[in-house]
Amino acid sequence: MVDMQKSELPRLAILGGTGNEGPGLALRWGSAGYPIIIGSRYADKAQETAQALNEQLGIETIQGMVNNQAARKADICVLTVVHTAHQAAIESLGEDLQGKILVDATARVDFRDPRPPAPPSAARMAQDKLGPGVRVVAAFQNIPAHLLKKRLGEALDADVLVCADDQEAAQQVMQLAENAGMSAYYAGGLDNAVVVEGLTAIAISLNKHYGVKTASIAVTGIPKEP
Amino acid sequence: MVDMQKSELPRLAILGGTGNEGPGLALRWGSAGYPIIIGSRYADKAQETAQALNEQLGIETIQGMVNNQAARKADICVLTVVHTAHQAAIESLGEDLQGKILVDATARVDFRDPRPPAPPSAARMAQDKLGPGVRVVAAFQNIPAHLLKKRLGEALDADVLVCADDQEAAQQVMQLAENAGMSAYYAGGLDNAVVVEGLTAIAISLNKHYGVKTASIAVTGIPKEP
Repeated sequence: MVDMQKSELPRLAILGGTGNEGPGLALRWGSAGYPIIIGSRYADKAQETAQALNEQLGIETIQGMVNNQAARKADICVLTVVHTAHQAAIESLGEDLQGKILVDATARVDFRDPRPPAPPSAARMAQDKLGPGVRVVAAFQNIPAHLLKKRLGEALDADVLVCADDQEAAQQVMQLAENAGMSAYYAGGLDNAVVVEGLTAIAISLNKHYGVKTASIAVTGIPKEP
Repeated sequence: MVDMQKSELPRLAILGGTGNEGPGLALRWGSAGYPIIIGSRYADKAQETAQALNEQLGIETIQGMVNNQAARKADICVLTVVHTAHQAAIESLGEDLQGKILVDATARVDFRDPRPPAPPSAARMAQDKLGPGVRVVAAFQNIPAHLLKKRLGEALDADVLVCADDQEAAQQVMQLAENAGMSAYYAGGLDNAVVVEGLTAIAISLNKHYGVKTASIAVTGIPKEP
């Protein structure tokens, strides 16, 4: 029964998945039973990361391959590159992503000079570049990598703001978040994502001022469904 | 003893204080014992709002007067105009605000087309216009007016992100927030305020999608001091 359910879970590719955020998300989703592919510009680096994640979870199903191949094999692709690599990644993956959901998790900030970004959002730029054949959803930008890697079975003390023009794609990504132990909220269209991208600048300031690595935000004022 | 403490509380002017957010903040601070002046472009409107607040709280100390006079008489001024009136308010109050702290609570959003704003933040623009004789602090932009007016004695389910270049001024405003039942966090310099201003667009989307009026955010990942 469990195996049947698991076989129905979408296959996830985490593109640029050898950094900080990507492996954290992979751990959560791998642990929840999703089939995972780690993508990287370099196949050997992707395979190394996949292997390390398999060992950590005691499984053998996480694969590593180059980004393009990973994107083609997946149902939902999650982009976790650093913001300086965002545009090049979108351009090189345009064909491979057609027909799929692209979750843009790019933290749009220069860590040496962490100022808030100006519109349009990275997610809007991605959507404009990729065209209507790809459904872009912005999510997970504000989830500290530090939190993802800890206590995998427990709920995270940070909420996911999901911005998308396509409601059905947003719902699928909210399900991904919930299955990884995060509460997710639909927070408007892709233009709103620039605010979530800017929360990284706020989190950096909070982390610095309060001497932590885990500052983020939760949504308040919305009663949870029973 | 209580009177002595109260007499040491700074006098607050709430400029543009006859709208939605201003009276909510006035209720909280008036109820906490702060001397309050409601400012408006029209003296009679200011006095009407002050009178209504006095009646609601069962006190007689809240005064109403025109913005310029209110600003001159106060120690800390809180600007709660709508964003279309922000620039004109700053220009007309420049002289009256010298030597004081200006708390910029402007929700920088057009409610008919609620897109996130571009940098610079309203608070940065105010600081540039007012010069170094005024210490601008951005705060309270994301606190739903709806929440402020309810259950005055209880803590609010929304946190205040305080952005300021001047740390000592930020501390004073954080104290104001705490005394009004809100947890406040120092979230970086005035440039970061554009993100908090943009949270209004997120809150509008959340309110619409989830059918509430109270969506906001709380800070997570920072242990509370004992």
